[in-house]
Amino acid sequence: MPHTPSQTTVLPADELHALAVRALLNAGAPLADAEAIGRVLVQADLFGIHTHGIVRIPQYLERGRLGGLDPAARVHVEQVAPALARVDGANGIGPLVGARALEAAAEGARRAGIGAAFARHSNHFGPVMPYLFQAAEQGFAAIIASNATTTITPWGGREARLGNNPLGIGVPSPGGDPVMLDIALSVVARAKIRRAAAAGDAIPDTWATDAEGHPTTDPDAALAGFLQPIGGHKGYGLSLMIDLFTGLLSEAAYLTHVSSWNVAPERAQDLGHVFILVDTSRLMNAHVLAARMADFAGILHATPPADPAQPVRLPGESELATHRRQSAHGVEVTSADVAALRELAASPV
Amino acid sequence: MPHTPSQTTVLPADELHALAVRALLNAGAPLADAEAIGRVLVQADLFGIHTHGIVRIPQYLERGRLGGLDPAARVHVEQVAPALARVDGANGIGPLVGARALEAAAEGARRAGIGAAFARHSNHFGPVMPYLFQAAEQGFAAIIASNATTTITPWGGREARLGNNPLGIGVPSPGGDPVMLDIALSVVARAKIRRAAAAGDAIPDTWATDAEGHPTTDPDAALAGFLQPIGGHKGYGLSLMIDLFTGLLSEAAYLTHVSSWNVAPERAQDLGHVFILVDTSRLMNAHVLAARMADFAGILHATPPADPAQPVRLPGESELATHRRQSAHGVEVTSADVAALRELAASPV
Repeated sequence: MPHTPSQTTVLPADELHALAVRALLNAGAPLADAEAIGRVLVQADLFGIHTHGIVRIPQYLERGRLGGLDPAARVHVEQVAPALARVDGANGIGPLVGARALEAAAEGARRAGIGAAFARHSNHFGPVMPYLFQAAEQGFAAIIASNATTTITPWGGREARLGNNPLGIGVPSPGGDPVMLDIALSVVARAKIRRAAAAGDAIPDTWATDAEGHPTTDPDAALAGFLQPIGGHKGYGLSLMIDLFTGLLSEAAYLTHVSSWNVAPERAQDLGHVFILVDTSRLMNAHVLAARMADFAGILHATPPADPAQPVRLPGESELATHRRQSAHGVEVTSADVAALRELAASPV
Repeated sequence: MPHTPSQTTVLPADELHALAVRALLNAGAPLADAEAIGRVLVQADLFGIHTHGIVRIPQYLERGRLGGLDPAARVHVEQVAPALARVDGANGIGPLVGARALEAAAEGARRAGIGAAFARHSNHFGPVMPYLFQAAEQGFAAIIASNATTTITPWGGREARLGNNPLGIGVPSPGGDPVMLDIALSVVARAKIRRAAAAGDAIPDTWATDAEGHPTTDPDAALAGFLQPIGGHKGYGLSLMIDLFTGLLSEAAYLTHVSSWNVAPERAQDLGHVFILVDTSRLMNAHVLAARMADFAGILHATPPADPAQPVRLPGESELATHRRQSAHGVEVTSADVAALRELAASPV
């Protein structure tokens, strides 16, 4: 979903969080759960990932009204081994399931050095970066992923059977900036092809295939076809392995068993997630880690750039700068999104 | 290194393994270590990954003679938490360090549901698939990676500061075929650009940059430049996160601290690896897992193909077919490689 330019409002993150919490309370969520969901979504907005921020709350609650998810769900965590948890999302709001799975994996990692949580019966859990950030704040390196509605074809196929599954990997730097990668495995988002179509531009033949599964430079044919994964068979393989970890091993739905929340908003999606956290304090002390992270970033930043105006950056660097700026000066969100949230927050409890 | 067509010999895997073990014993490796190394390398040949099979033994031992690695090294495993091990490779042969790290991660996973090993002071550990396969045979899902000599530029840079780091992910299917992805993060291997140069063909501008960091379609300019990662900034980010996990968190070398074994074969590389294993039996019983894996493969195999002659396949499928064929009928290796191995195996102990 592209974030189209429109009138914006600047709100302190706390105020945005309070609005989110009231909207979720009004929909039946317990206070602690509403706060956890609000934390993930407001962090998304703080990072500038507005497509996955508080704008999602009206969508989540609309699906709640349609019976597609349960805004009052109680997530159940089962510790099946000292470092391994299975999480039943009970068809709750995705960021709630994500937040609980993150906690369960963190508990395992504190206990055993590494911990994991496999979550099922979940929904769209938002962007990965807020979870990576929360993990990093506690000293955890993290690998986090989810499956998703099918939008891409298996490599060599001509029918969508695989999600454009998000993957996040993060490593903390005590007292400094964590490095956080948050990507999906298509070459580009569909929105970028829509913009090319609107502008009448051809697209590189690596972005998408037509409906028959053949690479195309025609954006209209691409929109009728399928997104291509990065690196062809490599991105296909990565997306597939993510579905095995997040969907199959979690006992969630996978591949075409995942239903689309656009096409069937009234149906449970049964998405799956995996959270793997490593307690870095067991590997080295915080000073050593901080020094190594600073050296690592320094080596990359000192790379001679191909374009002098575009210095080399690390994953998450621009989002962290946005987070810092908006934490200090307020979060810029569209006025329409704030109005929608205020309305939900104002409804009688 | 491309496997150029040449005269080949077919040998039973056992015989190839015995030759490998004798060659390694002659170089001072303890028996159990020689057997572990032989197992990884012969499995590479069984999978048809000959560039990373027994052909490496003469190279490893040549580096041993130059003092670049220690063929008699004793790997040290330190269990720093119930599910977390640090492995000191003691500059041993890479597949030995890999095999010991795999065991350490497996012990943690048996104990705690998930286990990890972070290895340092290592060398090129071969292909990832044999480790994924050994993990899958014991019921473990696995994420395994290594860093490598710098060959690719950070995204937007024009100097190699990052390895084309290998990544493997595997999920077992009890009684059936595991799914195993084993990839590096460049769009193509350098060998493919060399072939285009030899044939006088242009290459897609997504494969490589010239020496200034600009995308090129000229294979000669590409060979003087740098491989491009899959998905541009996404593959850059993935390769970088792998280096953080395998190099930085393991207390191994990372980025430009890794020395090249081609350029300086007499120097220790200090490569790092990470092995993360999940005990799938804690997540679901073997029958359920097998049924879900069969369903998953079935959905993908049934995808209508873009080219009817090229059905959709899963990662590792062709390698497993080669493994089965060569396990039954013998491993096809070049006669020159076998001769080199026989010579090393025949030396007086």
